This record gives sequence, structure tokens and C-alpha cells, in this order.
Amino acid sequence: MEVGFLGLGIMGKAISMNLLQHGFKVTVWNRTLSKCNELVAHGATIGESPAEVVKKCKITIGMLADPPAALSVVFDKGGILEQICPGKGYIDMSTVDPETSTKISQVYRSLNSFGLEEYCFLHLIIETCVDTDSLGVTVNAKGGHFLEAPVSGSKQPAETGQLVILSAGEKELYDEAIPALNVIGKKSFFLGEIGNGAKMKLVVNMIMGCMMNAFSEGLVLSEKSGLDPRTLLEVLDLGGIANPMFRGKGPGMLQGNHSPAFPLKHQQKDIRLALALGDENAVSMPVAAAANETYKTARSLGLGDLDFSAVYEAVKGLK
Amino acid sequence: MEVGFLGLGIMGKAISMNLLQHGFKVTVWNRTLSKCNELVAHGATIGESPAEVVKKCKITIGMLADPPAALSVVFDKGGILEQICPGKGYIDMSTVDPETSTKISQVYRSLNSFGLEEYCFLHLIIETCVDTDSLGVTVNAKGGHFLEAPVSGSKQPAETGQLVILSAGEKELYDEAIPALNVIGKKSFFLGEIGNGAKMKLVVNMIMGCMMNAFSEGLVLSEKSGLDPRTLLEVLDLGGIANPMFRGKGPGMLQGNHSPAFPLKHQQKDIRLALALGDENAVSMPVAAAANETYKTARSLGLGDLDFSAVYEAVKGLK
Amino acid sequence: MEVGFLGLGIMGKAISMNLLQHGFKVTVWNRTLSKCNELVAHGATIGESPAEVVKKCKITIGMLADPPAALSVVFDKGGILEQICPGKGYIDMSTVDPETSTKISQVYRSLNSFGLEEYCFLHLIIETCVDTDSLGVTVNAKGGHFLEAPVSGSKQPAETGQLVILSAGEKELYDEAIPALNVIGKKSFFLGEIGNGAKMKLVVNMIMGCMMNAFSEGLVLSEKSGLDPRTLLEVLDLGGIANPMFRGKGPGMLQGNHSPAFPLKHQQKDIRLALALGDENAVSMPVAAAANETYKTARSLGLGDLDFSAVYEAVKGLK
Amino acid sequence: MEVGFLGLGIMGKAISMNLLQHGFKVTVWNRTLSKCNELVAHGATIGESPAEVVKKCKITIGMLADPPAALSVVFDKGGILEQICPGKGYIDMSTVDPETSTKISQVYRSLNSFGLEEYCFLHLIIETCVDTDSLGVTVNAKGGHFLEAPVSGSKQPAETGQLVILSAGEKELYDEAIPALNVIGKKSFFLGEIGNGAKMKLVVNMIMGCMMNAFSEGLVLSEKSGLDPRTLLEVLDLGGIANPMFRGKGPGMLQGNHSPAFPLKHQQKDIRLALALGDENAVSMPVAAAANETYKTARSLGLGDLDFSAVYEAVKGLK
Repeated sequence: MEVGFLGLGIMGKAISMNLLQHGFKVTVWNRTLSKCNELVAHGATIGESPAEVVKKCKITIGMLADPPAALSVVFDKGGILEQICPGKGYIDMSTVDPETSTKISQVYRSLNSFGLEEYCFLHLIIETCVDTDSLGVTVNAKGGHFLEAPVSGSKQPAETGQLVILSAGEKELYDEAIPALNVIGKKSFFLGEIGNGAKMKLVVNMIMGCMMNAFSEGLVLSEKSGLDPRTLLEVLDLGGIANPMFRGKGPGMLQGNHSPAFPLKHQQKDIRLALALGDENAVSMPVAAAANETYKTARSLGLGDLDFSAVYEAVKGLK
Repeated sequence: MEVGFLGLGIMGKAISMNLLQHGFKVTVWNRTLSKCNELVAHGATIGESPAEVVKKCKITIGMLADPPAALSVVFDKGGILEQICPGKGYIDMSTVDPETSTKISQVYRSLNSFGLEEYCFLHLIIETCVDTDSLGVTVNAKGGHFLEAPVSGSKQPAETGQLVILSAGEKELYDEAIPALNVIGKKSFFLGEIGNGAKMKLVVNMIMGCMMNAFSEGLVLSEKSGLDPRTLLEVLDLGGIANPMFRGKGPGMLQGNHSPAFPLKHQQKDIRLALALGDENAVSMPVAAAANETYKTARSLGLGDLDFSAVYEAVKGLK
Repeated sequence: MEVGFLGLGIMGKAISMNLLQHGFKVTVWNRTLSKCNELVAHGATIGESPAEVVKKCKITIGMLADPPAALSVVFDKGGILEQICPGKGYIDMSTVDPETSTKISQVYRSLNSFGLEEYCFLHLIIETCVDTDSLGVTVNAKGGHFLEAPVSGSKQPAETGQLVILSAGEKELYDEAIPALNVIGKKSFFLGEIGNGAKMKLVVNMIMGCMMNAFSEGLVLSEKSGLDPRTLLEVLDLGGIANPMFRGKGPGMLQGNHSPAFPLKHQQKDIRLALALGDENAVSMPVAAAANETYKTARSLGLGDLDFSAVYEAVKGLK
Repeated sequence: MEVGFLGLGIMGKAISMNLLQHGFKVTVWNRTLSKCNELVAHGATIGESPAEVVKKCKITIGMLADPPAALSVVFDKGGILEQICPGKGYIDMSTVDPETSTKISQVYRSLNSFGLEEYCFLHLIIETCVDTDSLGVTVNAKGGHFLEAPVSGSKQPAETGQLVILSAGEKELYDEAIPALNVIGKKSFFLGEIGNGAKMKLVVNMIMGCMMNAFSEGLVLSEKSGLDPRTLLEVLDLGGIANPMFRGKGPGMLQGNHSPAFPLKHQQKDIRLALALGDENAVSMPVAAAANETYKTARSLGLGDLDFSAVYEAVKGLK
């Protein structure tokens, strides 16, 4: 099977190498083309532009660094739009950035609340920002197919095909891409209409943020009431709520190590967005609401760029 | 090694059978002596009373059904007190009941705040209620040793020696009992002074209660915003916050199955007590406080005797 | 002094009558012109259109029923824009509707976050919705002056000149309008740049919503713990937190009377918006966040269109 | 009418002076007898001991500085018990101290939960602490009558007879004392069984604490979002939630003035106790719970001895 791949950052390189190792023919493109060399050495072909990649491959996957890059590969000269057509599909795996999801859902919602004509909304979005909806619609307008497919997992799972893929959009394209998705992830989900991938991530991250906050309260409570918090970590890891996050982050947290894997400000935004989703649907979420305020306290203490485990410092109180 | 064992309910029977299978000589006693037969068939000896068991064994372990029973084996005619003496130890594993821990800690704390003489406190407790402190002090008064050792885990871990033991009290007795504790549990902790076992359980249960509440908010949010909550369960189980509790209870919760493993009213009490412990130490715990109120709502809806997973119904709202 | 007045609903009629009684020459306009008759009987002149009113008067005040009406008097044929010019001012008192403030601030904020060109924003707004900013800018574009001046208070304070006016925009126009504002309100504030009026209302309403929620918790707590809640009302009214809201709404609340003065769904939106304002500025607001979730519970129970005092029913729990 | 008065601190002196000015014959006693002189100059008689006062008067009122003093006037040599008898009554107005209410209700509740014999409870209380129940029972045991009558209000209301009296206990004594109570307070309530006075105060103080917290969030929000918080104070004071507390404390709070009228640690305890009362009765109180955590944060910041308005500093965050 032939697959195009746009974007060879840490994640993109790992995924396309994994595809090559599983026998896929991969045509790669990267803004800095020299980054393609390592993959070429393992059998990949180079495409000179996103358009050229799409021209060669039925299915092209994008894993771009950020929203402007994700936009650029579609709309710029030499972009996907120049070659996408009936029978071809584009899968954007790069829209995991919660910042973007946030903006999109906010705009979408506020504009909707004004009852804007759809054309007006699309016009606005296409002209001014990138999002999966606009990409989808645009690609579709040319007759191509589109799938949003944010992944959960980082470098190592990407190398070993252990990502979790939360895809949404056109089922036809999803089915067609299954052989590739099966290599990329240990599990992929098709969640229906576009936006459901982002929603699912919000729900998961909301639960995660609350757990981290409760965990922090427990650590501080144990310290202040004369128990060794390291023993608490051990006890937790032996019981029914043992989980990789407590195990992985706990010891570092106690030493004040909060080097950012998932920045606290993004975690807080996801909780806030989950609360907004709950507001829309009249779901009362008092625990998430309380956690949100603690994360805001952490932000006000200047901890927003640290890992979200730094909420522990806010619970602890500063000296 | 010779060990006495008092109380052959589900847990006690499983533990003493496990001890027999590991080559311990076990002298058992149970209020209804006929319950001893199965163990005798596997090599156990019968003691006619707690006192007789203590007379025969250096170390006696109790796993009684409830606080009155735990009290009775110590103070009643034929009780431990009649034979406990220097060189002998009693390990009470039965005080895992959070109801009792709660009462004890409340009384202890309120009385303390009045600056009562200790003899007065002990006199009161001994006359009117059972608790680990009084047992310990009493046993010590006779020259024996005492250990509180609440366990975490249920029937199956008890049979297979996979319990987690949170012991506190006399280190000497703990060290002496290690061979038996190693057979009973996959891990045992010595947490220092009496009370630390109960505190540790409170902290763990507080975190657990918050997680269940956040989990419930996520399940309801997914349902109300058009996502399949069963898919959420799958996604959660593939990521960094995957844990046995979500995995084990999630599917049943979605079907409204909340048959009680740990009753909601006990979970709420533990959160409340953890908050009280936080209050004492000026630890602000807003997530636990929010969860506590949701569990109270669940209680007011008549869900107190169901499993604590029934907090999901309170989050969902009743029809 | 000559003043134009657009919109003779309950509030507009009361205000313009009050102006007439204080010796102002008032030129009135209303969509249904017959509604002007009563005012003409008291000395008012009729303007055939908003444009004609503006032509006659240096200062025109609008008190329109809803956002479309507020928009229409500016942009439609015969609208303010046709006659506004240097030396003339328009004061919109009608934007007190929290629904609108919400939408506007949301759009404003989300669009801003995309870095849209201002012309684009204005174009969008003018085409599709009404808001004070667009009005102000538009009016200014013609050389006229603009002031937003939401009022606090209802019919009776309007008749007796006891409104509170939260104005923002052009200070020059504010100063010029003082004689009229002094008749209309017992107090008027000039709060600086446009938007500050709405912000101030959000902060006040957030505090009000929290108070109502705490008040409800107190009423339910007194009932459930054997105190007569009517006695609580009496005690509260004699102390340091006595206030017109408790006094005015309390007795009705206890009887289940929540006929809408300020609908619960609007109160909840204002708390949510105040929280959003806090999020922007990293202000942690745990009490407001907790109240927000209770109001959401009330919404989910179908109480959104009742008075916000119906949060009492949510606190109480439904039978 | 003849009234005895024990305790001539700020409040006691003001109340007894007020009684004298209204024509009552007052026999006063104070630990430091010289403090009686000013009252004697206005017509009071001196009693050499509490017992002597009770001997002379049908009704004796106590307003003691603290719980030990309140205990002492009853039980010590020369105390009330020596002369109380059928036909005489004692009204304790001094038990407004929330510290004491807290301890009492905690002990009362925990002991109750153990099903202690009543005699045991009373024995304990009489021997070790003071509380209104024990006083009542003791006085009754001698055949006298007892009323708890905590007052709300400080020095100035005491001088002018503007206190609010929350009495509970024996209605017969209440009725008999009405002429005095009417002079002492602008309003007195009879709330039924002993304990209801304290409960009522808890409910009121819980609402007050939540209001102060919400008020603080509003002040900080206004500051951080570019509004002048002093203007917010003005706007609040003109509307439906205007109240003496906002008016009286607001300006000082903005200047960091939190000299203690009602210490923050006492306010937090009252919220905690109100939550405990809610817990007993399965009343969910999420706003009070959130406020409680903020007050705990304030305590952890070392603000416990300042006025409860210092919760504003906790909301603001420390530099």
C-alpha cells in the first residue's frame, strides 16, 4: 500500500519509519527537505511538495508541528488543494493541539449562537484560521476525502505503533486507511462526525486533570498529617486505582520536578473547555469545576508552562 | 512457625487456609466452632477460646466481623486478656471498617480538644466501645504487644496472599510477625504510631472517591454530548490513567449496576474524615470538598447503601 | 433641554414620562406610533422615525426591547445613521440584556484570539448582529458620539428616577447628558471604555448569584435540621447581611414561588461569563465555580426559565 | 422588675446600664468587684458572689468572657448552684463563642454515636467542660430554670438595646424574662430546644462567610479586569444586594485592613460546623464547601487571627 506523509518532526518521522518497516511504500515531504534523507535511506521516496505527494498517493497523512503549518500544507502554493480530487484522501493527525481545538470550538459555538449563515462562517474560517472543519470542507469541495485523527501517545508509542487514534470524519476514508492505521496505532477509533475526536480528548483530559488534582491533595494531606508521601505512592500503586500517571509522575512531583510533558495551561484549558461542553448540555460537573479553579490558581502563581503536575505546588501553597 | 487465628469469616478463613498451605501451624477459633472443621481437615488445631489460642501461640491474629466482635475477643470471659503476657502479641486485622475508624478518630479528636486526662479517655473507651488504641493499651497493660494491621483487598487476594497490609503500633511485634505477614500479603507496610494505618486508608480512599466522581462526570458528559460512553471506557483503558477501578466498575455503572463492594455512605464518610484531617492541618482540598458534596447528594437520593459508583447516578441526575 | 427618546416599552415610557415631568422637551418615537399618544398628552412631540428624532435633538436615548430592535433603529431605513453627525450623540440604554452581553463578549473574545482584522470584525457584526461596539464605531464613523448605558433597576425605579446607570464610551457625551441622566437615575457611573458597563454588571450579578445560592443552602439546611426557615429570614433581616434580595425573595421562595424577574438561565450565563473573565485574568473563583454548577443542575432540572431563586429547588433536591 | 447580672465586660456593662436606664433594679457581680462601681453610681446594687445575686433575684443573666468563666460562675464556691432553686432562673447570654459551640456539638455528636448512657455523658461534661446543656441540666437538677440566649450584635447595639437574642431552653423562663429581653434586644427569638440557638447562628454565619468569599472574588475580579473596585462597592450599595457588611467592611478590605471583629478562624469553624450539620442531614452545600476551602487556604497563609474579611487576601493570592 502506498501512503504519503507530510511532516517529519519527532512524531512524523517515527510514524513513517514504522510504516516503512511494515512494508508500506511511503512518499515523504518535509518543509526542510533534508530531513527526508534518513527515511529515504530506509526506502522512502521524496515528494517535492504536498501537492506532489498527494498526486502520487491515494492516501496522504499529515503530522504537522502547529496549526499554521497544518494550514500551509493545504492552502499554500504547492499545497494539497492543488491535487486533491475524487478518489484521494487526506488524514490530518496533527490537530491534537488543545489550543486550536479550543479556539475552533469557541468560534464555532459563538458564531452559531448568532445564527450566521454557514457560508459566512466558512468564508471567515477559510480566510483567517485553520481548523479541521475548514480543511475537511475545502478538501471535500475539491472532491477529496478528509479525516481528523488526533493521536494520543508520544515518541516511543509512535515508533512502536502503540498510539491511540481518535478519528472522525468520513468513514469511507477511515475504512480505506485501516491497514495504515493498524500499523500506526495499537487501537484506532472512528467516532463519527468531525469534532468528536476533539470532544473525546477533552473528556479524557478533564478526568486526567481531576485525578492529578485529587492525587496532589492526597500527597499534600499525607505530608501535612505525618505520613510519608512516598509510602502513599507505594500503597496507591498496589491497589485498585493504580495507574501509569501516578506511578510515572508521583516521585518527580515530590521532588518538585515538573518538566513539561503536557503544559499546565493546556490542561487547564481542556478542563475549561470540557466545562463549556458540559454547560451546553446542562451537565453539572462540580469536581471538574473545583479542579479548574485550582489550575487557575497554579497559573496565577506562574506555573502555567510547567507540567500539569505542578498543580501539586498550588495545592501545597507557596512558601 | 505457630500462629493463632481468631475469626473465620470469608477473609479469616481465606487467610488461615493460606497460612496452612504455606506450612504454618495454625490454631483457630471461631464463635461458631463448627466453622473450624474445614480448616482442621487441612491441618489446623482448634482453640476452645481466644484465651486458649493465645496460651498456645506467641502471635495471634484477629479478623473479626465487626467492632463488637473485635471487642469481645479481647475483653469477654475467655478473652485474650486472660492469657496475654510478656512475649506474646496480638495483631488486629479487623479494624478496616471505616465506620469505626471514623468514630474513633472523631471521639479521639474531640476529647483531645478538651484536654481530657488520658486515663479518663481510656476508661471511657474501654467501658463503652472498641478501638485499636484501647486494645493496644489494654494488651500492653498485661505486658503483651499490639499491632493494628488493617488490610486492603478482598476474598480473592486473601486466598492468594495478595493483600496489602497497613500496620502500625509496636515495631517489635511487626518484625516478629514478618514471616506470617509475608504469606498473607503481597506487601506490608509499617507506618509508625497507631492511627497511621487508618490515616493512610483515608488518604487513599479520598483520592479514590474523587477519581470515581470525576470518572462519573466524564461518563455523563460523553453521553450528553453525543459520544458513546463505552468508547470512553475503551479509550481510558488504553492511556496513562488506565486503572483497575475504571476497568472493573465502568461497564456495570453504565448499566446501572451498583451492587455494593464499598458502600457509598462509607466512601462519603472517608472523604469527610479526610477533609477533617485536612482541616486540622490547614490543607485546602477543594476537589475533595466538591466530591464530598456530590456524595452527599447521592446519599440524599437514597443511594447510600449502594456501591460508591452510584455517585454516577447523582451526577447524571434522576429522571 | 431637548432629548430624543426611541422605544416606549415599560421602561422607555417610564423614563420619558419622568423626563417630561422634570421639564425636558422630549421627542419620542416608537415602532407602533400609537404608543406615543399618552406621552404626547403629557407634552411630548412625535418623531416619525429614529432619523427624524436625531435630526431634531442633540442627544437621543434608546431603550429598545431587544437586540434586533436596537440594531434596527440604527441601521434600517429611517435609522439613526441617516442623521447622526458631528455634535449629535446617541445613548443606548437598552443593552442590559445579559444574553446579548454574553454573545458579544464571546464573539469579541474568540475573534480577537484569531487576530482578525478589525474591519473584518466590524463587517461581520454589522451584517449579522447588534452590539454596542459596532453601534459606537458606526455612529462615530458619521461623526456622532456614542455611549453605552445599561441601567440597573426595573419599572418602579424608572418612573421615579431611581435607576442606576452604568455608562461607558465617550466622556464628552456623558458630560453633556448629565442633566438627563440625573433625572433618569439616582446615580450614574462613567466607567471608561466600552465594555466596562457589561463587565461591571457581570461582577455584580456573579456576587448576587453566589449569595442566592448560599442563601438557598442556608434555607434548606435550617429546614432539614429542625429550624423554621421563616425564622431564619427574620434573623437574617436583623443583622449585618440583611439585604433587599433576601427580604424580597425569601418568603416567596419558601412557598415555591419563582416567577421570573431575572431568569435562572440568564443568571447562570452571567456567572459563567464572570468565570470566563476570571479565566482570562487568572483569577481563581471557587465559590462562583461551585455556584455555577448548582445553577447548571437547576437548568438540567428544567428550572431555567424560572427566577434565579429557583436554584433553591435544586439545592433542596426534587422529590 | 429585679434582675441579677453576672459579668461586666464591654457587653455586660452596656446591657446592665441599659437595664438600669429602663427602670430595672439590677444586682451586679463581677470577678473584679471594682468594675461594679460605675453601675452602682447609676443605681445598681452589688452582689458579693454569683450565689448572692441568685439569692436576691428571681432571674439572673450571665454574660461572661469565656467558657471557663461561664463554668466558674455556676460550679465554683459561691456559684449559682448554691442558691438556684425552684422559682429562680438563669439565662446564659455568654455562649456565643463559636469555639465552644463547635466542641460541644462535636463531643455531643461523637459520644451519641457510641450510644453512651446519658449519665456518662453528663458526668463527663460536668467534670471536664462547660456547655449550655450541662448548665441547663445542672440548674434544673436543683429545680431552677435555664435558658441559652446567645446574642448577635456588639457594643453599640448592646448600649442601645438593639441586640438580637437567639434563645432556647425553657419557654416558661423565656416568657418570664420578656420585659428584660425587650429592653436588651430589638428582637428576641425563642427557638425551642437547647442547641437551636447555636444552630441558627451557624446557618447565619455560614451564609455570611459565603457572601464574604463571593464578595472577595468580585473585588479581585474587578481589579484584575480593569474596573475600579471602589466603584464596584458603590454600585453594589445601590442595588438589591446592598447590605451593611459589604458597606462596612469593603473600603477597609481594599486597603488591607482586616483588624479582627470576627476572627477568620472562627468563621471557618462555623462554616465547617454548618457543613457537618448538613452532613448529618444529607444536605449538599457545594458553595459553603468551596468557601470553607478558601478560608482554610487563608488559615494556611497565617491569616486566621485577622478578621474573616482577610479571605480577600487569600482570593487575591499573596505576592
